[in-house]
Amino acid sequence: MWPDRRLMELFKIEHPIVLGPMAGAVDADLVIEVCEAGGLGSLPVAMLNEQQMRDQVAKIRDCTAKPFNVNFFCHTPPVPNNAREHAWRERLKPYYQELGIDPGAPVPSSNRTPFDVALCAAVEELRPPVVSFHFGLPEAALVKRVKDAGCLVLSSATTVKEARWLEANGCDAIIAQGAEAGGHRGMFLTDDLASQVGTFALVPQVVDAVKVPVIAAGAISDARGIAAALALGAAGVQIGTAYMFCPESKILPPHRAALKQSRDDETVITNVMTGRPARGIVNRVMREVGPITAIAPEFPLAGGALAPLHAKAQSQGSGDFSSMWSGQAGALGCEMPARQLTRALAEGAQTLLRKMAG
Amino acid sequence: MWPDRRLMELFKIEHPIVLGPMAGAVDADLVIEVCEAGGLGSLPVAMLNEQQMRDQVAKIRDCTAKPFNVNFFCHTPPVPNNAREHAWRERLKPYYQELGIDPGAPVPSSNRTPFDVALCAAVEELRPPVVSFHFGLPEAALVKRVKDAGCLVLSSATTVKEARWLEANGCDAIIAQGAEAGGHRGMFLTDDLASQVGTFALVPQVVDAVKVPVIAAGAISDARGIAAALALGAAGVQIGTAYMFCPESKILPPHRAALKQSRDDETVITNVMTGRPARGIVNRVMREVGPITAIAPEFPLAGGALAPLHAKAQSQGSGDFSSMWSGQAGALGCEMPARQLTRALAEGAQTLLRKMAG
Repeated sequence: MWPDRRLMELFKIEHPIVLGPMAGAVDADLVIEVCEAGGLGSLPVAMLNEQQMRDQVAKIRDCTAKPFNVNFFCHTPPVPNNAREHAWRERLKPYYQELGIDPGAPVPSSNRTPFDVALCAAVEELRPPVVSFHFGLPEAALVKRVKDAGCLVLSSATTVKEARWLEANGCDAIIAQGAEAGGHRGMFLTDDLASQVGTFALVPQVVDAVKVPVIAAGAISDARGIAAALALGAAGVQIGTAYMFCPESKILPPHRAALKQSRDDETVITNVMTGRPARGIVNRVMREVGPITAIAPEFPLAGGALAPLHAKAQSQGSGDFSSMWSGQAGALGCEMPARQLTRALAEGAQTLLRKMAG
Repeated sequence: MWPDRRLMELFKIEHPIVLGPMAGAVDADLVIEVCEAGGLGSLPVAMLNEQQMRDQVAKIRDCTAKPFNVNFFCHTPPVPNNAREHAWRERLKPYYQELGIDPGAPVPSSNRTPFDVALCAAVEELRPPVVSFHFGLPEAALVKRVKDAGCLVLSSATTVKEARWLEANGCDAIIAQGAEAGGHRGMFLTDDLASQVGTFALVPQVVDAVKVPVIAAGAISDARGIAAALALGAAGVQIGTAYMFCPESKILPPHRAALKQSRDDETVITNVMTGRPARGIVNRVMREVGPITAIAPEFPLAGGALAPLHAKAQSQGSGDFSSMWSGQAGALGCEMPARQLTRALAEGAQTLLRKMAG
């Protein structure tokens, strides 16, 4: 009874609901449940190595025969800048001292792996039905290999211009990521945060600009959001934050506690946590150092010097130095198993759409 | 055939569409056409004096028997700050020199009038069916007088907290103004732009927080937007930018030309034009001085020193120094008479809602 069946036919799924691939929060457990409920589960690889990815994909295939999505970051690896990295450690030094951590200890390397030749070879072997990218697309030769392997390719656009670029460069569907969305902004043709576009404005303009199906993302946390996204012309939705409430999500206790109390006006877009703009619940380091600062090292290096602070504070139950990603509609989330949530969202949206006919 | 009739019953209108009260763009001509088509026309008074308001209201009543809305700004008048006003003129001096205007000439006073006792007395006499405010509400005694005169009272909320405050202080309906909206942000309990909430996130959270009907605003420019806003739980919509395309709108030629070419990512929120955050199409002074600057005088004084630049540049066909307010969905607008546009929006949304039922 969905009004638009393009996404279901493209992905061979029952409901036009894509799980947001949230690195650190989503693993095979959540993917499997969403797939089994008829949505498209998405496995984030950004914080996994190749073997971990292979293990997770194997686990998914052991537990479900449904299609799934594997998601990669495709940023350009950072150019080290000793002066900036030093300035960043100096800025954070008072926090090291406060938490009793040696500021002279080596900074851990940050663990966001971009898609590369090795991961591409693994994808060609594993052949997940869908591969999604964030921060644009990898080089054309790699995109071609992924498509030649039979995988459908997705990526996120934050402007109409980015959507047109993604369509021209081979995407089979486009995620229109509104400014309300939690986690990293997918922006890749602009670095101008001031002109980033809200979900309500972005979705219909992207729909008008491209021929491929559009998946709306950003502040979609309940049945109302799904119905509204479809009304705006989206063929489906990508839902992240609402799935972080599920028992299957692997977020840390301070993050879960913050989400449960979250309000509409408690998130901001920050570059403090990783060096790249991302939306999360305001914590101490974002408030005191950001939310946007020119001294944060290039993505993902900013996260390196924060890692010891995160580990120590988190062990004491504090999210002061942790990425607590969330979109602006976290307050609409509710805690239930992912399979049940997916079904409730699908049924709720269809019921609402019937009711809206008047 | 609208699914939710609360707003139609409250305002005694046919369609849940409120004209955005855009000072400088809207006068009785546009109000009358929207009212006659079954929506709620809104007359902005912020740039009128009392007599002009009386003339406009008389004209509306001469031409339509339908209900209408009169809108007031209710900011606190600015505290003059000679040092800041001087610094502002110094910052703009190179533009004066470039355009051949004497930088030493007296700065015109800026013409945004807050609601006051005199205007309140006029409202009590004129008794418009609806009175809406921007920037919160006037002092409680004045709100009481407006309500005692039989007028319904509206105001805009940019956060759930503001919506709760407006309900507690007597609003009969609340406009949920998402961050995509054009013109001045209605924000009044916060000055934190970083945490302003997008339409898609704000509307359902405000709907959940208050009992009065919610009117969605921000990036609603076509039938899809109306259907989506209703799906999010709004009882109706307020539409501004799309009505600026109408021949009845009084925007200046550079503004009209910019709107016709507008893209999703060409507006920003700026305080350069008036001293208070407002969303508009990026022009030269916003790009070179802003979009946000600490040296802009308090609202509305920043506009004073810009006025001669605006007048001169505008007479030469340039919007370099003009407020060209627009939401983020200006590209969805199309030029047609306001009566026809209102009917097309209403019919389009109802048709879409029926189609969405699957």
